[in-house]
Amino acid sequence: MEFKISKQLIAEIEQLIESGQDGQLETLLNDLHHADIAEILDELDVADATYIFKILDTDKTAEILLELDEETREDILEQLSPKEIAEELDALDTNDAVDIISELPQSIKEEVILELQDVEHAKDIVELLRYDEHTAGGLMHKELVKVNENWNVLTCVKEMRIQAENVTRVHSIYVVDDEDRLKGRLSLKDLLTTSTKTAIGDIYIRKLNSVKIDTEDVEVARIMQKYDLEAIPVVDEMGILVGRITIDDIVDVIKDEADKDYQLAAGITQDVEVGDSVLEMTKARLPWLLIGMVIELIASVVLKDNETAFKKYETLILFIPLLSATAGNIGVQASAIVVQGLANGSVKEFNRNYFSKEVTVSMISGIIISLLLLAYHSFMFGEYMVGIAISISMISVIMIAATLGTLVPLILNKYKIDPAIATGPFVTTTNDVVGIMLYFFIARTILSV
Amino acid sequence: MEFKISKQLIAEIEQLIESGQDGQLETLLNDLHHADIAEILDELDVADATYIFKILDTDKTAEILLELDEETREDILEQLSPKEIAEELDALDTNDAVDIISELPQSIKEEVILELQDVEHAKDIVELLRYDEHTAGGLMHKELVKVNENWNVLTCVKEMRIQAENVTRVHSIYVVDDEDRLKGRLSLKDLLTTSTKTAIGDIYIRKLNSVKIDTEDVEVARIMQKYDLEAIPVVDEMGILVGRITIDDIVDVIKDEADKDYQLAAGITQDVEVGDSVLEMTKARLPWLLIGMVIELIASVVLKDNETAFKKYETLILFIPLLSATAGNIGVQASAIVVQGLANGSVKEFNRNYFSKEVTVSMISGIIISLLLLAYHSFMFGEYMVGIAISISMISVIMIAATLGTLVPLILNKYKIDPAIATGPFVTTTNDVVGIMLYFFIARTILSV
Repeated sequence: MEFKISKQLIAEIEQLIESGQDGQLETLLNDLHHADIAEILDELDVADATYIFKILDTDKTAEILLELDEETREDILEQLSPKEIAEELDALDTNDAVDIISELPQSIKEEVILELQDVEHAKDIVELLRYDEHTAGGLMHKELVKVNENWNVLTCVKEMRIQAENVTRVHSIYVVDDEDRLKGRLSLKDLLTTSTKTAIGDIYIRKLNSVKIDTEDVEVARIMQKYDLEAIPVVDEMGILVGRITIDDIVDVIKDEADKDYQLAAGITQDVEVGDSVLEMTKARLPWLLIGMVIELIASVVLKDNETAFKKYETLILFIPLLSATAGNIGVQASAIVVQGLANGSVKEFNRNYFSKEVTVSMISGIIISLLLLAYHSFMFGEYMVGIAISISMISVIMIAATLGTLVPLILNKYKIDPAIATGPFVTTTNDVVGIMLYFFIARTILSV
Repeated sequence: MEFKISKQLIAEIEQLIESGQDGQLETLLNDLHHADIAEILDELDVADATYIFKILDTDKTAEILLELDEETREDILEQLSPKEIAEELDALDTNDAVDIISELPQSIKEEVILELQDVEHAKDIVELLRYDEHTAGGLMHKELVKVNENWNVLTCVKEMRIQAENVTRVHSIYVVDDEDRLKGRLSLKDLLTTSTKTAIGDIYIRKLNSVKIDTEDVEVARIMQKYDLEAIPVVDEMGILVGRITIDDIVDVIKDEADKDYQLAAGITQDVEVGDSVLEMTKARLPWLLIGMVIELIASVVLKDNETAFKKYETLILFIPLLSATAGNIGVQASAIVVQGLANGSVKEFNRNYFSKEVTVSMISGIIISLLLLAYHSFMFGEYMVGIAISISMISVIMIAATLGTLVPLILNKYKIDPAIATGPFVTTTNDVVGIMLYFFIARTILSV
């Protein structure tokens, strides 16, 4: 059923391009979905990709443009004149067009806008370009189907037929008053199931969720998920219907959010992908490595200060990696649960019940690990007091790590910093240092060094 | 616009329940969205929640049931008779009903099924219960709108009005032949924009994606995202249309996948939430801590073997935390990029270009870090040879970590193990041990200890 790209197919296509058999090329490609053609173009070199791009008609290429990898898209657009780019954009939904325009260099951007043929469309694009991409305004399409509360089903359907021409997916129909203020919605289902004489005023649903133009994208995603919406209308300060956000735009927001958390946890600042340049990758990663380094240099100082202790009881040293790793692991576990809780709304602020639960969990883990460690140490080295010292410091370090792991994300969140950072290198390495300090402090007290 | 739950509201509701003012309670609640009522019930104690549950009518409570936290749902269902539960399920879409049934204890499950009134609905539910929840069959609804290829638009619309009654969202209309084999789809838009006399055969779109009943849920999600679909039909081995998956079901799959990766990276095996019991949490977390512990015990052995080295050059010890942390961080970074690449399909197998890129990135980072370290060491301790030894081992450890970080997820993936494990405790702690070994090996060779 589904298309699979193959080396042979690529070879065949390159062959057809070389021998300039545009006819065959077209017939071959026109059978494919634009997402699949995009996949092919990503595999070809710029020249070939542009060649194909130019023989296909605009409706298709415009859609392809959206599916291409960023680099391939840039490469191809560089080969096109502002006029040619404008033609592509004329064939796209407003917010898709905006996504592409905003990737263009400023100078070209303006030329392209001037070249846009459909004036209404151009106006909409210029309007959308004004909004921050991380707000409802940046996510919304201008394309939607709206009807006046004073019409009846028949007029409504007639009007919709016209409007629907420019709308990829109708979803629900919005009902507005004469000033275009959003009053409610009309479900397609209702429309299918009521007689044509009925007045819209009698059948439309007055209660519906909408978002303000400046609502944050993640908030829009949360609302659409909570109320299980496939589209949500966007209104301006005066309650006038200005656009619509559909679930497929939200899917990306949700994925990006989740990916961002994962990357922060892995110590990667911006969204890097396999395709990115060495420079981009280094820029996204080196800072975290350096932060980690500086923090761990403190650890080296701490160790230096405790020389006397581990010179006297050298087994203390042997368990430093175990100590840091365990503290790190439990800290990250604790943070991860809170971070996800904050993300899905099940955690809002510090919660005593949850905290005591976390403390219990880490207490149990701590005791088990410490006892195992005590057994191991006694078996390997005898020196019971040292073993006890190590075990006790281990359990305390675990408790501290769990506590920090739980609190740090909450604190970060309170100060509007992404809590996912708590599962990243910065906090884990800090955990190391704190852990090592505590470890020696307790060990020395017990062994009175 | 959006509902915000408040302490006052809860108090008011508890008051109304106490004084048994069902009337006011109903009027108050009927204005609210079921997702909001669910939020309220989650806050109330079981008795109150069940009380409210019983005064609201089934259409509402059924929807509420879906939105409740798992615990609250369990608690309430325990208060209901199989007959009452069956009534709720009769009001739900098949796959929503199935989600709830599958949470019930086996014995009750069967009683409930017997109590279902709508036989067709019951049949569908029983059918869906057979499919693995992580396949298309487990995700799909039985509710959909299908028309016969031999009808015309008018008959089609008539039929649809009837069918649409049981379908929450119409999306596209599927076209089948007399044997119910899926032939294509009819977009609502087309239907709105063509005359009623047109024959379906002339306007329906023959090309459409569909998935097999046993397709994995993540694969379904990938296809729906790639082709930007809001619904996809599910067919059986004979190509017969058996159900439909809508984007809102897929949103959960996507979120769960992303969350799973994040949790594996954080060393949490099953999907734990803030609400889970101490036991569940410990079960999900302790194993990773113990694995980490065992691995780090090897590190302690390695350290023991190198006593002579760090007794002679004690500064070697001071940088062990720095070494492990850096190796860990760079390893996780490398893995995370590959893991996400595998997830979004941009990485499929070992790729020389990407690998050499990764090596370059870590080489650059390694050189910078080692030079800084060398400078620091020389400044603090003089002993240049030792500083050089440490720096050289550091850079080699970084290179190894980056290599393992890149390869491990690919290997795991090859053997059908979730590659996200590579960003978790197991691999990072292993990295530690390998790092420390290498560190001392190189240091000792250079310093000939």
